[in-house]
Amino acid sequence: MITLPPIAPLDPHLEQKLHAYIDGLAKPPGSLGRLEEIALRIGLIQNKPNPAIKRPMVFVFAGDHGLTEDGVSRYPASVTGAMVQTFLAGKASANALAKAVGADMRVVDAGVATPVAPHPNLIDAKVRAGTANAAREPAMTAAQADEALKRGIEIARQAVAEGCDAIALGEMGIGNTASAALIMHRLTSTPLPLCVGRGAGHDDAGLARKLAVLERAADRSPVTDPMAVLTEFGGCEIAMMAGAVLGAASARCVVVVDGFISSAAALAAFRLEPRAKDYCLFAHCSAEAGHKRLLEALDARPLLNLDMRLGEGTGALLAMPLIKAAANILTEIATLDDVLNGKL
Amino acid sequence: MITLPPIAPLDPHLEQKLHAYIDGLAKPPGSLGRLEEIALRIGLIQNKPNPAIKRPMVFVFAGDHGLTEDGVSRYPASVTGAMVQTFLAGKASANALAKAVGADMRVVDAGVATPVAPHPNLIDAKVRAGTANAAREPAMTAAQADEALKRGIEIARQAVAEGCDAIALGEMGIGNTASAALIMHRLTSTPLPLCVGRGAGHDDAGLARKLAVLERAADRSPVTDPMAVLTEFGGCEIAMMAGAVLGAASARCVVVVDGFISSAAALAAFRLEPRAKDYCLFAHCSAEAGHKRLLEALDARPLLNLDMRLGEGTGALLAMPLIKAAANILTEIATLDDVLNGKL
Repeated sequence: MITLPPIAPLDPHLEQKLHAYIDGLAKPPGSLGRLEEIALRIGLIQNKPNPAIKRPMVFVFAGDHGLTEDGVSRYPASVTGAMVQTFLAGKASANALAKAVGADMRVVDAGVATPVAPHPNLIDAKVRAGTANAAREPAMTAAQADEALKRGIEIARQAVAEGCDAIALGEMGIGNTASAALIMHRLTSTPLPLCVGRGAGHDDAGLARKLAVLERAADRSPVTDPMAVLTEFGGCEIAMMAGAVLGAASARCVVVVDGFISSAAALAAFRLEPRAKDYCLFAHCSAEAGHKRLLEALDARPLLNLDMRLGEGTGALLAMPLIKAAANILTEIATLDDVLNGKL
Repeated sequence: MITLPPIAPLDPHLEQKLHAYIDGLAKPPGSLGRLEEIALRIGLIQNKPNPAIKRPMVFVFAGDHGLTEDGVSRYPASVTGAMVQTFLAGKASANALAKAVGADMRVVDAGVATPVAPHPNLIDAKVRAGTANAAREPAMTAAQADEALKRGIEIARQAVAEGCDAIALGEMGIGNTASAALIMHRLTSTPLPLCVGRGAGHDDAGLARKLAVLERAADRSPVTDPMAVLTEFGGCEIAMMAGAVLGAASARCVVVVDGFISSAAALAAFRLEPRAKDYCLFAHCSAEAGHKRLLEALDARPLLNLDMRLGEGTGALLAMPLIKAAANILTEIATLDDVLNGKL
């Protein structure tokens, strides 16, 4: 196991100070609702009274899953590589949303089965060319899981070093709701059937097949340690996203968690270092079956609920302007005192 | 009663076409959830297959309410004028959010009790210097209500003529949740106690006093016709917002409805011209008590639910980036055919 970067606790004195400041603004106390809670959190994460989100980025971590051999997804595994090309061409859903909200995108090859040609927006961090079939054997070796985590930490810390102040956590990987369901099952003790959903669109028969495959995978290994769970059940992109959460948190950067897979990665990160959770904002509740329950297990209240279930970071991207707006509460609004005493 | 501008029905053929196009994009069908529904609606409103939101604006309609004489608000009426100055100084909550989402603001003096000095971002459309006390007499004359509606229509149409393609409907007016509650009561037949909420922050005693005053107002006049309701119960800013809804819809511009007062204005507009509703998107569910029920009465499903209850257009502004992102679905995403056949 690698050494994790230290993550600072949030400052309770600053929290009191920010709370009092927000209550003194020129509006009824509490009237901006959850936006005030987000403003406070961003101030605590950036550890200053005048925070700002100026350079949001979305990282799309891509990887393939051996579980697809047994039919856990409605789509063929080759779609992962095709979608990586679509991201790099700027024409996937996440690109459309990133453009709308002013976020840059990086695509991370965490473990795509096919080779990905170099591209200015591609980060080659491939740990292996797709995972092994977790229904039959460990998805990867312990050393590979460590390496994925380590690369995720580095990618996030590097982004922050280059000015990124909010990381949207996106992913692409045919079969990765299957991996995420196994991770959720093992790290929250939720019964497996409650963790398994229709993913990219299974019918009832497909859903039953997926559950049967995942029951075989779960039966194969009783692990509950977070690194062992990532090793056994994958995927490379999920382990790397867990690392990105830890890396961003260690650099005091806001992490915006997306949907089911992104939340499973965050869950693994929190099991490794509970303080990482303070640095995460949960963007939305996905329509994927297990996500609502996973959010409850994390005691996380998402910002949006729009029946989305695409992944790619789309939910996190949509939440980004809300988060940016929340930060403005601390810097752009007059105090009630200013208004009442003509100090505008 | 003035002649209302014609509002075109949405095109069912374009609807079919857009629906099929969205289903053919490079993502699982339906996986962008409600964002797809919004994309479709924006296409229909702009009546083209490649819509865009490029110049969103928020209009903050301000007015005073004679009902405040009887203590319907926790704040003194003078706060309306002070907040108008705060908007014009760029330092209110709505300014902070407008800046975050890239929307310009105009402040409309619809009926502020005190004089407002000229300012480049102020539209002087004052119908009267505050309404009369609706608990004792009509809030305004029928001619004044007509004039407020007319000016609202003109303001919206002028904005569209200048390039605005999405209008966020904001307001400021101490006492205007009281007017809005009366309008909701009369135009939806909801019992008055279910329409009345804590506004800017009443305690239980304040809430009881507010309800008692509004019961007196309601007992004074049995009107249910929308123009008569606006005349009897006000306010100038609500009548003008109703006009803005009609004006924007007549110019095929997206209207983003904000919270309780904004929704009451939209309700009045829909009672005057039901087709206007097709042009409206509902931004959020406010924490103000009557709003959820009002949205249900309008059969409207808001995009956000963040416990906000400030008004000013803050909820509508927060929804704006989601709406902008939704429009991008129709123009920025490759089709599945493109992806599978290497046509990126």
